Amino acid sequence: MEKNLLGTHVITQIGILVHDIEKTSQAYADFFGVANPGWSITGAVDVAETEYRGERSEARAKLAFFNMGSLQLELIEPDEHPSTWREYLDEHGEGPHHIAFGVEGMKDIVTTLARNEMPLLQKGEYTGGRYAYIDTLEPLKIIVELLERDKKK
Amino acid sequence: MEKNLLGTHVITQIGILVHDIEKTSQAYADFFGVANPGWSITGAVDVAETEYRGERSEARAKLAFFNMGSLQLELIEPDEHPSTWREYLDEHGEGPHHIAFGVEGMKDIVTTLARNEMPLLQKGEYTGGRYAYIDTLEPLKIIVELLERDKKK
Repeated sequence: MEKNLLGTHVITQIGILVHDIEKTSQAYADFFGVANPGWSITGAVDVAETEYRGERSEARAKLAFFNMGSLQLELIEPDEHPSTWREYLDEHGEGPHHIAFGVEGMKDIVTTLARNEMPLLQKGEYTGGRYAYIDTLEPLKIIVELLERDKKK
Repeated sequence: MEKNLLGTHVITQIGILVHDIEKTSQAYADFFGVANPGWSITGAVDVAETEYRGERSEARAKLAFFNMGSLQLELIEPDEHPSTWREYLDEHGEGPHHIAFGVEGMKDIVTTLARNEMPLLQKGEYTGGRYAYIDTLEPLKIIVELLERDKKK
């Protein structure tokens, strides 16, 4: 595989799956003495164009973001629809799900990774950009998320 | 609990448990296009003074450190002796084990956390400092590691 396909090795985010985002957000706020950031919900499928394992999915998740100095810590409470979040939570229980990297040219990167036995798990759009979760569990022991921001016009 | 007991909320390290540190180190080096850092082994019990759940333990681990820009990524291959590494790897399989924070006054912090139902899991010494793993799984869904450097003389 081409070296440094992502064009970066800077981790920008750790994603942690939880059953109860309000409870765990408050625990983080208390433990680290920071403000509880509250949570938002990912877009509905017609906006987010969510795809999980190649199929359109109604899945949504509640998200809470903490600035941990070096990077963002993201808490994720998924709904019951099919997603990497729900699947991983059901199989592994609460805990870390992914590390994220900011990239440019996501589509080409996803294609090349898939050719190298690291298939796309899930993708979707959000205001200002898009994400893709890659199945890197076998080589890296954690899922990699790619984040691409819209180009400013 | 007192707010911000650690005196920081900056994550300095993510620790990931693996079965084969040489294989996974090479996978990280290949994926991110960085040098394979090789591995080192933690000190023997008479040097490291390793304690796991309040008892002296012979446990050691092979460690490999990658600089991921924002923080360090640590791969950990534990031996078979009792440790949080071995226990967590046996129960959860390969994957993330802890997030780490640099602290001062570790002993007092550990005591206060234990009083607040976050007991010490494991501690040990290494050249230049010491570490303590805290059982924060219930509130934070991940283990917290405290790292304290020796004061320069």
